[in-house]
Amino acid sequence: MINDLEQLYQDQLRDLHSAETQLITALPEMIRHSSNDELRDAFTHHLEETKGQLARITRICDGQGIEPTGEECDAMKGLIKEATKHIGETEPGNVRDAVLIACANRVEHYEIAAYGVAKAFAEALGYDEDAALLSDSLDEESAADTKITKIATGGIFRTGINEEAIH
Amino acid sequence: MINDLEQLYQDQLRDLHSAETQLITALPEMIRHSSNDELRDAFTHHLEETKGQLARITRICDGQGIEPTGEECDAMKGLIKEATKHIGETEPGNVRDAVLIACANRVEHYEIAAYGVAKAFAEALGYDEDAALLSDSLDEESAADTKITKIATGGIFRTGINEEAIH
Repeated sequence: MINDLEQLYQDQLRDLHSAETQLITALPEMIRHSSNDELRDAFTHHLEETKGQLARITRICDGQGIEPTGEECDAMKGLIKEATKHIGETEPGNVRDAVLIACANRVEHYEIAAYGVAKAFAEALGYDEDAALLSDSLDEESAADTKITKIATGGIFRTGINEEAIH
Repeated sequence: MINDLEQLYQDQLRDLHSAETQLITALPEMIRHSSNDELRDAFTHHLEETKGQLARITRICDGQGIEPTGEECDAMKGLIKEATKHIGETEPGNVRDAVLIACANRVEHYEIAAYGVAKAFAEALGYDEDAALLSDSLDEESAADTKITKIATGGIFRTGINEEAIH
C-alpha cells in the first residue's frame, strides 16, 4: 500500500525508471526505421539524453536509499506497442517517419507529465536537489518534443515530413 | 497498410475515438474515488468535455466518410490500467487524490500529443474545419491539465493536495 506522498514519490521514480529503461530499448528501433536524416539525428540525440535521464533517476533513488527497479510502466509499454504496430503498417519513407514522430510526440508528452508530477512531489517534500535534476529532464523532454514537431510540420523556409507524406 | 498522410490521419482519428471512448468509461471511476470536492468537480467537468470531444471526432469522421471505430488505443489502455492499479494501492483521501491527478496529468498529455498530431495532419491536408475542431479539443485538454495541476500544487493562498498528502 501507498500511505503518504513520500511513498508515492518513490513509486513515481520507479515508474520513470521503468519508462526510461523501456525507451532505451525502443529508440534504437525507431532510429533504424527512420528515413529522414534530421529525424534519425534527433532520435539518436534523444537516446543519449534518455540514458542521462535514467542515470539521474538512479542517482535520485540512490540518494533516497531505494531500489529504482520493481515497477513496470504500463503506459510506456502501450506507447511502444503502438509504435511497433505502426512500423509494421508502413513502408520506409515519409509516411513511416510521420507516424514515428506521432508516436514520439506521445512518448515525450507522457514523460513531460511524469517528470512534472515527480518534480512537484519533490518540491512538496523539500527535496530541492531532486527537483532540480527532474527539472533538467523535464526541459530536455519539452525540447525534444518541440524539435521533432518542427521536423513534422516544417516552417516558412522548409517543407515538413507531414507535407512530404501527402503523396 | 498505411500508404499516405490521408490514411495516417484517418488512423489517428480512430485512435482518438478509441482513447476518448475508453476515457468516458474510466472517468466515472476516477470521480467516484476522488475525495477532494474541487478535484471531483474538475473530473466531472472533464467527463462532459470528453463526451463533446468524442462527438467532434465522430463528426470529423462522418465528414471524411469513414467509420470512427476499429482501432484500440493501447496507450490509453495502459494509462487506465495504471490508474486502476494506483486506486487499489491507496486508501480514499489526499494520497489517492494526488495519484489520481498524477494519472490524469498523463492522460491529458497523451491527448495533447494526439490532438496536436491530428491537427497538424489536418492542416497539412487542407482540412481547415477539422483542424479548428481538433484545436478546440486540444485547448480543452491543456486547460484541464493546468486546472488539475493547480489543485495538486496549490498556490500562495492555498495548500495543494500534494502538501496535504505528506502526512
